[in-house]
Amino acid sequence: MTKELTINSERLWNSLQELARIGAYEDRATGLTGVNRQSLTDEDAEGRRLLIDWLRDAGLAVTVDQMGNIFGRREGSEPDLDPVYTGSHIDTVSTAGAFDGCLGVLGALEVVRSLNDRGSTTRRPIVVAAWTEEEGVRFGTDMLGSAVAAGRLSLDYAHALADAAGKTLGDELERTGFKGEHPVLLDPPHAYVECHIEQGPVLLREDTQLGVVTGGQAISWQRITLGGRAAHAGTTPTELRIDAGLAAARIVVKVREMVDSGDYGRLRATVGHIATSPGLPSVVPDRAELTVDLRNPDDGCMVAAERDLAAFLETLPESQPGLAVETRRMARTNQVPFSGEIQNLIATSAEELGYSTSHLMSGAGHDAQEIAAITPTAMIFVRGQYDGVSHNPREYSTPEDCAAGVRVLAATVEKLAS
Amino acid sequence: MTKELTINSERLWNSLQELARIGAYEDRATGLTGVNRQSLTDEDAEGRRLLIDWLRDAGLAVTVDQMGNIFGRREGSEPDLDPVYTGSHIDTVSTAGAFDGCLGVLGALEVVRSLNDRGSTTRRPIVVAAWTEEEGVRFGTDMLGSAVAAGRLSLDYAHALADAAGKTLGDELERTGFKGEHPVLLDPPHAYVECHIEQGPVLLREDTQLGVVTGGQAISWQRITLGGRAAHAGTTPTELRIDAGLAAARIVVKVREMVDSGDYGRLRATVGHIATSPGLPSVVPDRAELTVDLRNPDDGCMVAAERDLAAFLETLPESQPGLAVETRRMARTNQVPFSGEIQNLIATSAEELGYSTSHLMSGAGHDAQEIAAITPTAMIFVRGQYDGVSHNPREYSTPEDCAAGVRVLAATVEKLAS
Repeated sequence: MTKELTINSERLWNSLQELARIGAYEDRATGLTGVNRQSLTDEDAEGRRLLIDWLRDAGLAVTVDQMGNIFGRREGSEPDLDPVYTGSHIDTVSTAGAFDGCLGVLGALEVVRSLNDRGSTTRRPIVVAAWTEEEGVRFGTDMLGSAVAAGRLSLDYAHALADAAGKTLGDELERTGFKGEHPVLLDPPHAYVECHIEQGPVLLREDTQLGVVTGGQAISWQRITLGGRAAHAGTTPTELRIDAGLAAARIVVKVREMVDSGDYGRLRATVGHIATSPGLPSVVPDRAELTVDLRNPDDGCMVAAERDLAAFLETLPESQPGLAVETRRMARTNQVPFSGEIQNLIATSAEELGYSTSHLMSGAGHDAQEIAAITPTAMIFVRGQYDGVSHNPREYSTPEDCAAGVRVLAATVEKLAS
Repeated sequence: MTKELTINSERLWNSLQELARIGAYEDRATGLTGVNRQSLTDEDAEGRRLLIDWLRDAGLAVTVDQMGNIFGRREGSEPDLDPVYTGSHIDTVSTAGAFDGCLGVLGALEVVRSLNDRGSTTRRPIVVAAWTEEEGVRFGTDMLGSAVAAGRLSLDYAHALADAAGKTLGDELERTGFKGEHPVLLDPPHAYVECHIEQGPVLLREDTQLGVVTGGQAISWQRITLGGRAAHAGTTPTELRIDAGLAAARIVVKVREMVDSGDYGRLRATVGHIATSPGLPSVVPDRAELTVDLRNPDDGCMVAAERDLAAFLETLPESQPGLAVETRRMARTNQVPFSGEIQNLIATSAEELGYSTSHLMSGAGHDAQEIAAITPTAMIFVRGQYDGVSHNPREYSTPEDCAAGVRVLAATVEKLAS
């Protein structure tokens, strides 16, 4: 059955390229054209209008909810049945490529367009979804639109979030015309499927075309601030120093040792931000700040890693009495397992279409992890070139791989909707 | 003999306070009034004019050399003999107190004023010196005026140095009216003595009033830049990462291990600046930068420390293939031993005046270390309160301790000039 639905890979590719022209900029670091279409900017609004035009052209009934989430509904032969949702997001980071999020939205659109081409009606309705502020780069909380739709975060909380210039998300929804009337709390759909680029190197290195995503890992972000005492590099005996930078470095090394120990399962740990103050060569830093990003597919291992890191932080003042250690949680989610049934549908569909697949955990956060709280959910990963670099203008997946992902998405959605 | 020269400690203190009003600012970090009188700014020029007025009022013949170094000469009974020089600097860092440098210049002025009060003439001339850009915060090279005067750096090099706004030292000398006619290369004086605050906690912790400085330690500054690969914190397997921040942290920890090992004598090491880029919680840093400040009273131990650190840097790519490590030397001086004879004069004078002393190495750089290249030189350290904090508005030495240092300076200069 699934082989009947032939998607138009050229139309898919052209749509990706056309959307990427909105917010395009010349990236100095790479010499490439990148995309900067952050959520609810003028560029995002222009992208949203283009998307809505395309959804309507495809015959879909478009609604916008109170979070600016956009839905395009294709009626089923039994309209009262819960619909199958499929989508992703079209907002981007400030240095993006053309694929992150957009492939899932325009892939869902291509599924609908292909069903239209074939003149086929599914039993259940199909809804194409584009979630607001998935990246979290403008208003500080990622997966925001889907998190509010799934009921994890409140609408008031989301509307009150402000960007660096002090503009609130609520005001920006108003300004851009995307504060919809539709209630944000989503009636649980029949299922949710999201196609997304992997944003990692695993599929490429394995020479596998598509990934069947088993779930999202637990994520823990914290900011650690260390308070020491500024002192002259030349005149202050070592034993009298309270060196905040040294303490920060010990944390970075410790975190990597925890990963290498193997004691915390498949822990990944990243210290992306380290900075000292006053930052002068001849002054012992009185302040250091760092962020620790922990990821783990196992909640128990994550809790153990967080606990042991906290215990390590408590020992730091032993070697430097007077050192102040403060931590602030920035984000924390448990691991999210995806539906085994939908994973099977994806794997079967891929096999029928002749694509190789691997099962893998999602390292990044995705809207699917939010929607998984209210309905059976799974994801399809499309491999990326250049070690899967993403959030960078070098982000690239081949037209063939994009088409493969969307073919499997189409087959899966059609099965779920039948 | 030395007891005859009574200095006026109140006059000394008042001069320190009056000079500190030029460039005064309200320091937000401490809530105190600080001093920001960076070299060859309008504030420094105002301070220089006040100093010159004071020197002339004390009957001194004032000259300014091509580097803006200011000299006030008090004639001796045998004017053809090489003079005794004493002084320091009046330029400050951006967050200074009233004492760093100024105590040495105004202390020298007080020595002359006291000789005037007594109507006494020394055999040798006495020259009060105020050196340009000792701090190095504006034009990037410290001890600059004394280094050019002593012939270690060229006048052309110094004049071409530019501040952050692109203004050269040569142009700023012209603008402020302090590009003097006097040739900068100093005729070797008979001796040089400098009184300075300790800028460290040793004297205070030892409960000793004054320090006899045995020399300046070797100083090595380098900037290390690490090049890794930006990668997504959630999707990039640990073994595929090239984490520039982790490499930076390992260097910081290693440098402290070297200090603690005891293998490098009295090594002090400081990493004052650490920064990662792009600095986002969920991105493995592709770039990290840090500074390493090494100090050692023993040149051989310093060379060993530099060599072993360089060898360690070479091993870093072993655990992270592809990591780029670049080092750039920012400063390097050997240790400078001070004159044993003048140290004895200082110690004897202090003893005669009833002050307790310790011999200690200077941790910071001082003009005396430059002048030591051309003439017998030594320094007197005055203890500081609050663990000797300096380069901070909290910098403070009591009126009694300042007077003690200047009394010993007076006695030492008078002996050298007799």
